[in-house]
Amino acid sequence: MKFLDKIQSPSDLKNLAIAQLPQLCDELKAFVLETTPEKAGHILSSITATELTVALHFVFDTPNDILVWDVGHQAYIHKVITDRKNTFASNRKMGGLSGFTARAESKFDPFGTGHSATSISAIGGFAQAAKLQGSTRKHMAVIGDGALTGGMAYEALNHLGAIDLDVLVVLNDNEISIDPNVGALHEKQSYRAFFESLGWAYSGTVDGHNTAALVDALSAEKTKTGPRVLHVKTVKRSLDYWKDLLRVQRSTFNVQGSTTTLYQDIFANKLIALAQKDEHIVAITPAMLSGSSLTKFLAKFPTRTVDVGIAEQHAVTFAAGLAASGMKPLVHLYSTFAQRAFDQIIHDVALQNLPVVFALDRAGLVGEDGATHHGAFDLSFLNGIPNLQILAPMTGAELERMLAYAFTQNGPVVIRFPRGGEAPFRAEPLPMQTGSFRALKTGKKVCVVSLGAIGVEVEKAIKLAQGEEIGHVDLRFLKPWNDQELIDALRDYSTIITAEEGSMRSGLRDAFSAWAQNNLPKVTVHGIGLPDQFIPHGTPEQLAAKYGLDAAGILKKITEVNF
Amino acid sequence: MKFLDKIQSPSDLKNLAIAQLPQLCDELKAFVLETTPEKAGHILSSITATELTVALHFVFDTPNDILVWDVGHQAYIHKVITDRKNTFASNRKMGGLSGFTARAESKFDPFGTGHSATSISAIGGFAQAAKLQGSTRKHMAVIGDGALTGGMAYEALNHLGAIDLDVLVVLNDNEISIDPNVGALHEKQSYRAFFESLGWAYSGTVDGHNTAALVDALSAEKTKTGPRVLHVKTVKRSLDYWKDLLRVQRSTFNVQGSTTTLYQDIFANKLIALAQKDEHIVAITPAMLSGSSLTKFLAKFPTRTVDVGIAEQHAVTFAAGLAASGMKPLVHLYSTFAQRAFDQIIHDVALQNLPVVFALDRAGLVGEDGATHHGAFDLSFLNGIPNLQILAPMTGAELERMLAYAFTQNGPVVIRFPRGGEAPFRAEPLPMQTGSFRALKTGKKVCVVSLGAIGVEVEKAIKLAQGEEIGHVDLRFLKPWNDQELIDALRDYSTIITAEEGSMRSGLRDAFSAWAQNNLPKVTVHGIGLPDQFIPHGTPEQLAAKYGLDAAGILKKITEVNF
Repeated sequence: MKFLDKIQSPSDLKNLAIAQLPQLCDELKAFVLETTPEKAGHILSSITATELTVALHFVFDTPNDILVWDVGHQAYIHKVITDRKNTFASNRKMGGLSGFTARAESKFDPFGTGHSATSISAIGGFAQAAKLQGSTRKHMAVIGDGALTGGMAYEALNHLGAIDLDVLVVLNDNEISIDPNVGALHEKQSYRAFFESLGWAYSGTVDGHNTAALVDALSAEKTKTGPRVLHVKTVKRSLDYWKDLLRVQRSTFNVQGSTTTLYQDIFANKLIALAQKDEHIVAITPAMLSGSSLTKFLAKFPTRTVDVGIAEQHAVTFAAGLAASGMKPLVHLYSTFAQRAFDQIIHDVALQNLPVVFALDRAGLVGEDGATHHGAFDLSFLNGIPNLQILAPMTGAELERMLAYAFTQNGPVVIRFPRGGEAPFRAEPLPMQTGSFRALKTGKKVCVVSLGAIGVEVEKAIKLAQGEEIGHVDLRFLKPWNDQELIDALRDYSTIITAEEGSMRSGLRDAFSAWAQNNLPKVTVHGIGLPDQFIPHGTPEQLAAKYGLDAAGILKKITEVNF
Repeated sequence: MKFLDKIQSPSDLKNLAIAQLPQLCDELKAFVLETTPEKAGHILSSITATELTVALHFVFDTPNDILVWDVGHQAYIHKVITDRKNTFASNRKMGGLSGFTARAESKFDPFGTGHSATSISAIGGFAQAAKLQGSTRKHMAVIGDGALTGGMAYEALNHLGAIDLDVLVVLNDNEISIDPNVGALHEKQSYRAFFESLGWAYSGTVDGHNTAALVDALSAEKTKTGPRVLHVKTVKRSLDYWKDLLRVQRSTFNVQGSTTTLYQDIFANKLIALAQKDEHIVAITPAMLSGSSLTKFLAKFPTRTVDVGIAEQHAVTFAAGLAASGMKPLVHLYSTFAQRAFDQIIHDVALQNLPVVFALDRAGLVGEDGATHHGAFDLSFLNGIPNLQILAPMTGAELERMLAYAFTQNGPVVIRFPRGGEAPFRAEPLPMQTGSFRALKTGKKVCVVSLGAIGVEVEKAIKLAQGEEIGHVDLRFLKPWNDQELIDALRDYSTIITAEEGSMRSGLRDAFSAWAQNNLPKVTVHGIGLPDQFIPHGTPEQLAAKYGLDAAGILKKITEVNF
């Protein structure tokens, strides 16, 4: 009989003795390793936090006490011991549990997370509410040292450190996020001085793998009030380490793989080629060196690679400073995290028309990471920014061409490209000019005007629509457009279908519709793309099918409008 | 003969002895007070920084050395001694100098500012570029203690504190921004410990009104390299204090006034009325207590008013935490500063569909503050966010109605309203429902569909278009719409003109155009609103005329399309 068999909910934990917790922790780790093949980074972060998770639920009275996990990727163990053991195998599967914490999923997830550095602000709001409501519940936020590089964590610390709310921040310090951490706080390990300067009482460090010590430390924190930090040190081990130690039978874990070339690699390789010819090029990443494949760039150009930590705002304005000094900075951002740098893109880059190149990766559906991570909105929120050129490549060859083009421009250029591998690599020798599009196929009544990689699905759909003469334009640019050339290419159609892997609202569909009102009076515009909704998790294929973005869905739309 | 007569440019400063600088400083203060009636807050901030400004240019070799002013509102003295004395009377006037620093204006403004907390990131970019380019120039950012509450300043400090760039941050600590500062750093005055924890060498404090001491301290900093902070203490005095001391003749300064009721006061009074009936309502402001008229709310509900500092990201997620705890938070944001909280509005509020009310003030043209401060983009960037209701009142009575409505909703609601005073207050008793619009006037061929206060100008224009039967719908909602009712109201027109005080691209025009493609097939859509450009400064009237947003411009558009 395992201890885990008796645990459904945190209240069951209280029946165990402190001395029994380590065994439970090992059972939990083995359970997570055996149950889910997804996703190595999250599994490791969660397993590393096992003892901390168990101790928190053992000491505190969740869900009455409020526990918020920053990012939420470290919450797998939390999920298993909060009523979700029996459904945990559905983790990150369509219709199943989210890979992050989510309010809709459980009363034990009082606040959903996904992006980093939100937890301290959120827990402050809960604590302020409790004070106004006369509640004496406790409030805990668990945040990794990587997430502490985000500016909003500091905003929260500075505000809450000056007022009297009952907030405990648990710093889960494992010295690594996805890539090794950066920043002075990490390098100097000056957490005590930092927190104390901001008005927070500091305790620690505590060994994050010693359950009894954690229970002691958290019990002591439970008796206190006011803003306070408990600094917990944990050690991230490899998956193989855990499999060996815990004798987990599963022999392989899914690793994000692709039989085709990844867009991020096409990007990084081309950037290296360009940088070899132009010493002004500098690459900037907010803590996504490996996710951007910029590790290769770093190896070749160590002084021209800047990892600023999870600090998108700073990344963009730092790049603006470089550009104002005559350099050619490229900022790599995941589409969803670019939302964090929105004001900086407007105020520091576009307003000054500085030549910063933005590589917007993971644009469109990202799959299993779900609602917090889809790059659904970038076309929509960037579209309204003056001076920006916004491009999306249909193929890897186009991405290469667009990158080369971007560095020739005197103002800001955004190139959005998807997660995953590209479709067959075709090196169509079509020159790249501002506003140029590619008229790939001529048709009669209906033309699909696509932006980005979805154009490959459009091609497939048109092939499936045998006998029908469907036109296809690969737009390349969300803006600017060459108005007259576009009018000439499209004026003879009666129906245009815009196709984009992103929200149609404020995206390509809306921009094109407004443009067509005055430039193509005969035409009716329909749209293929994401609806004005948050998109859940699932495989990219499942989601593309659900929202009609694959060849079958595009064919269906073509058939519907072509009556 | 005044010293100031001999000063055009910083190189002229070097001809003065240190002992002569105090007199020059007094002459500069008097000059600024006498030359510009605009804008008290900026004049005071600039005058307070006079000795610091003169000392910086005396010690360093600008523009070869790089000097960035955070926010830029404290840079009036800087402008006067950097080639702009003769044009300074045009400050904040249309076609004249900007009230902030601006790259286009002078080589002495290497980086434009306007929003706070950008300067450290920017100067870091310049310093990184200098290192790559083999330059030994010096790099200075001057930042107020208020701006230090912004998270991106921390992101920059943490990043730059761990690398070896030649950056001097001058902390201009006057203990006040627009309202008294908040936050633990300010309360504890723990700047040394804070900066040192982040890897910055700290010196100070220096008396910011003692020119000789400043020259000494800055000269010492000039010999150093690496990330370092000089903490300067200054004292903000009143305008009257300076006028008396310097015997300035000008008897009055322009004070932002209005013969009509200010929208911000209508907002604050209604919020007080609502909060008196509902104890769940909490008001949150990022350092804009007086700008939002929430000082009144604070006086009545001290425990339900939260000033978080210039920390928009934290403000929004803190509100999300309150909402997740059953409270009804309202976040007041200037439209342009809401750009800073864009990700938090999406990820922490809208995705979780939490009932946070956003009062988006200063939406549309703000006038003399210019390009960095116009609320030109909110319709465009919020439009694509699912779950958001987005409203704009045509009148003060509508603002009251919308506020009351917003607190009855179970999800997030944005109400955007303009700077300044409202048009004649009309209490039309039309009920407020989700998606409801107001069909104010029926017409024949042409209908203007307006959103927000511009509707008043539309009414004027229609009155001027005597004899023409022009329809007018006040849309109230950017989204959601009641599709069928809107179709019924608009189906008989052949031309619709959308009218919005904001960027049309991704705004109302684009959303309405896409909707009309499929719902109003007979209709052609035209737009009145801001173009896809950054809008310069000028009076609101000048700008409205320039972009055709006043009655005359609207009439012109109506006439153009009604052929």
